[in-house]
Amino acid sequence: MTEREKMLAGELYYAQDPDLAPRLMRAKGLSQEYNQTPRSDTARQREIMHSLLGGHGERFHFEPNVWFDYGFNTFVGENFYSNNDCVFIDCNTLTFGDNVMIGPQCGFYTAGHPLDYTVRRKELEFAKPIRVGNDVWIGGGVRILPGVTVGDRVVIGAGSVVTHDVPSDCVVAGNPARILRKL
Amino acid sequence: MTEREKMLAGELYYAQDPDLAPRLMRAKGLSQEYNQTPRSDTARQREIMHSLLGGHGERFHFEPNVWFDYGFNTFVGENFYSNNDCVFIDCNTLTFGDNVMIGPQCGFYTAGHPLDYTVRRKELEFAKPIRVGNDVWIGGGVRILPGVTVGDRVVIGAGSVVTHDVPSDCVVAGNPARILRKL
Amino acid sequence: MTEREKMLAGELYYAQDPDLAPRLMRAKGLSQEYNQTPRSDTARQREIMHSLLGGHGERFHFEPNVWFDYGFNTFVGENFYSNNDCVFIDCNTLTFGDNVMIGPQCGFYTAGHPLDYTVRRKELEFAKPIRVGNDVWIGGGVRILPGVTVGDRVVIGAGSVVTHDVPSDCVVAGNPARILRKL
Repeated sequence: MTEREKMLAGELYYAQDPDLAPRLMRAKGLSQEYNQTPRSDTARQREIMHSLLGGHGERFHFEPNVWFDYGFNTFVGENFYSNNDCVFIDCNTLTFGDNVMIGPQCGFYTAGHPLDYTVRRKELEFAKPIRVGNDVWIGGGVRILPGVTVGDRVVIGAGSVVTHDVPSDCVVAGNPARILRKL
Repeated sequence: MTEREKMLAGELYYAQDPDLAPRLMRAKGLSQEYNQTPRSDTARQREIMHSLLGGHGERFHFEPNVWFDYGFNTFVGENFYSNNDCVFIDCNTLTFGDNVMIGPQCGFYTAGHPLDYTVRRKELEFAKPIRVGNDVWIGGGVRILPGVTVGDRVVIGAGSVVTHDVPSDCVVAGNPARILRKL
Repeated sequence: MTEREKMLAGELYYAQDPDLAPRLMRAKGLSQEYNQTPRSDTARQREIMHSLLGGHGERFHFEPNVWFDYGFNTFVGENFYSNNDCVFIDCNTLTFGDNVMIGPQCGFYTAGHPLDYTVRRKELEFAKPIRVGNDVWIGGGVRILPGVTVGDRVVIGAGSVVTHDVPSDCVVAGNPARILRKL
């Protein structure tokens, strides 16, 4: 397996790999270019996102500033909106359904590092996919951790840290996020 | 009522309204221009903020990067300072008294979306005012939610998520923020 | 004592001091210049960081955007990496050991303000050093508060707010951060 294949398989991989490192550099650079593109130049914004993302619906928008690790692992559905200063650490796949709204200052972190520091010293890391369903509203300042699946029609309260899967049709909040009510 | 009037009244409104959408675009664009203005060019920074904000005291400063949804709904008093990477989602009024200090990475979120996803699909949303009193110190990484009023002489600990009103003369912290001590 | 000496001694100091204010302006300006430097121009990035930081190892990288209050109070060891949108409020010393990895959207806050608002009105503030040991992994969205010392080989879970010292060889998480397990 290549390092990129290991990364997508959730296995330990070497992030400084000569195949992976330039891909990260490209995505960080395109993110920066996106952030410096005038907000009114929506055509250029769309062009950059089209070349960056793994896939997207017809209607979507990311407010700057926004940052991706690879871009090609992020897939957004129809009617996607994320507000300012969100970060998408898409070392593994980051999949958003249709009609997803994301508040400002959110972070989606697929990447993790081993608890054993001797393995971290070898710069081996891992990543687990994050999946967000349809019709989900994610409040501002939310962090979603590696491997988490969020169901459909979920509302995530502002400032939540989502460490475990969230079933469909509920409201969660807190650190760690807990179910507040069923919808 | 116009959509803008509904927005300020706390009622459901349509954010893609042809009167509102360009106003949001303008504020996001001016925010971006502010963030790209050299930090040493305080005259230009002040000029942009003067054209963006609903009102301000004589002495105030926002460190970049900073983002507003509309700008004209944000009012800051005398001796206002906010540090880097704060976000002001001012769909409803966001009012700060005198002598308010705000740490980096804070978020003020007046906007909310209905819990019923069928209403969210119609892109109807709402916003409730946030009021912060005089002589308030807000630590870094704090999020304040729609409709919250913070009293005078309050200290909000770093990383707090403020979901309810905070009375004057106390220290709050946590997620959700709770009163730690009276002053 | 000068205001800068008081600042480093953890005593109340006047931040608008004519010696200190231009130093803060310089660091904020260099941070902004760093953030606007093309991500592929690693030579220029390194040059700016070299002139900004108090000290650094041979191998280190800060992803933009990143902000410092003074820069000269931040010391990073060998093999240092911080991801996008971190903020380093280094009014007192901010010391990182070797092999430290920091996720996106983290904040290191050495600065504090008095609880007595009448003292805050005089614009007197204080700062306490933050020390992070060797082989530490800090997850995304973490805030570390004034005076905190983090031991060696520690893992800090995403979204944690670290209010107290963390001993070596453990995993902490939460708001406030608590020890989850010993390593």
